[in-house]
Amino acid sequence: MLDEEAARILRSKSFAHLALDDEGSPHVSPVWVDVDDHGLVVVNTAEGRVKSRRLAVGSPVALSAADPENPYHYVGVRGRVVKRTNEGADAVIDRLANKYLGVDSYPYRQPGERRVTILIEPERVFVN
Amino acid sequence: MLDEEAARILRSKSFAHLALDDEGSPHVSPVWVDVDDHGLVVVNTAEGRVKSRRLAVGSPVALSAADPENPYHYVGVRGRVVKRTNEGADAVIDRLANKYLGVDSYPYRQPGERRVTILIEPERVFVN
Repeated sequence: MLDEEAARILRSKSFAHLALDDEGSPHVSPVWVDVDDHGLVVVNTAEGRVKSRRLAVGSPVALSAADPENPYHYVGVRGRVVKRTNEGADAVIDRLANKYLGVDSYPYRQPGERRVTILIEPERVFVN
Repeated sequence: MLDEEAARILRSKSFAHLALDDEGSPHVSPVWVDVDDHGLVVVNTAEGRVKSRRLAVGSPVALSAADPENPYHYVGVRGRVVKRTNEGADAVIDRLANKYLGVDSYPYRQPGERRVTILIEPERVFVN
């Protein structure tokens, strides 16, 4: 479970660095992130990218994100994907664009791009 | 191989987020990072931590680091550990402390702590 401080950092404008297993090797990339009303970590990507190809329900993931006020204060999360869905994924990326860019609609949408939302249940949370 | 732009970001004061495999699950944490004269990525940790326990010569790793001037511009590296050594590791953490904190000596050393330097050979490098 995310405590209040972990949720505060993940709700800030800091990027999370999301790590996953890509056929036996780690992969990590910066992502927009948020926390939903159930305490799940929300990320959103496009079908076809490594994140969407490698993350299924049950996949283990990890992420770290620094406090925007202090890079030496950060949250680390290890958990699992509990949901992967295209439903509502365009609205989710618009909300993330609003959080990070202050705009109403995600400005980097590519023609033909299909968005996917990935929900992560935190299993271990560290705030350092 | 790191190109000039990737090396520039990794030589900046940005933290890297270092991902590794911890017994089948990804682990990621922010680390100080540098690039040595041979183009290897340098990190340094303390014996006993997840990074030192899970990283041996040959271990696959990944890291991502944002340009300090622009969080949407970042470098991603995937590679392998090519060296893991205690030799000179105190001097390496002092140099990293100088890079990140502007001090001559690493100020967070714990009693009895044994430092270890981990050198990573980049195999795939993305600058986005």
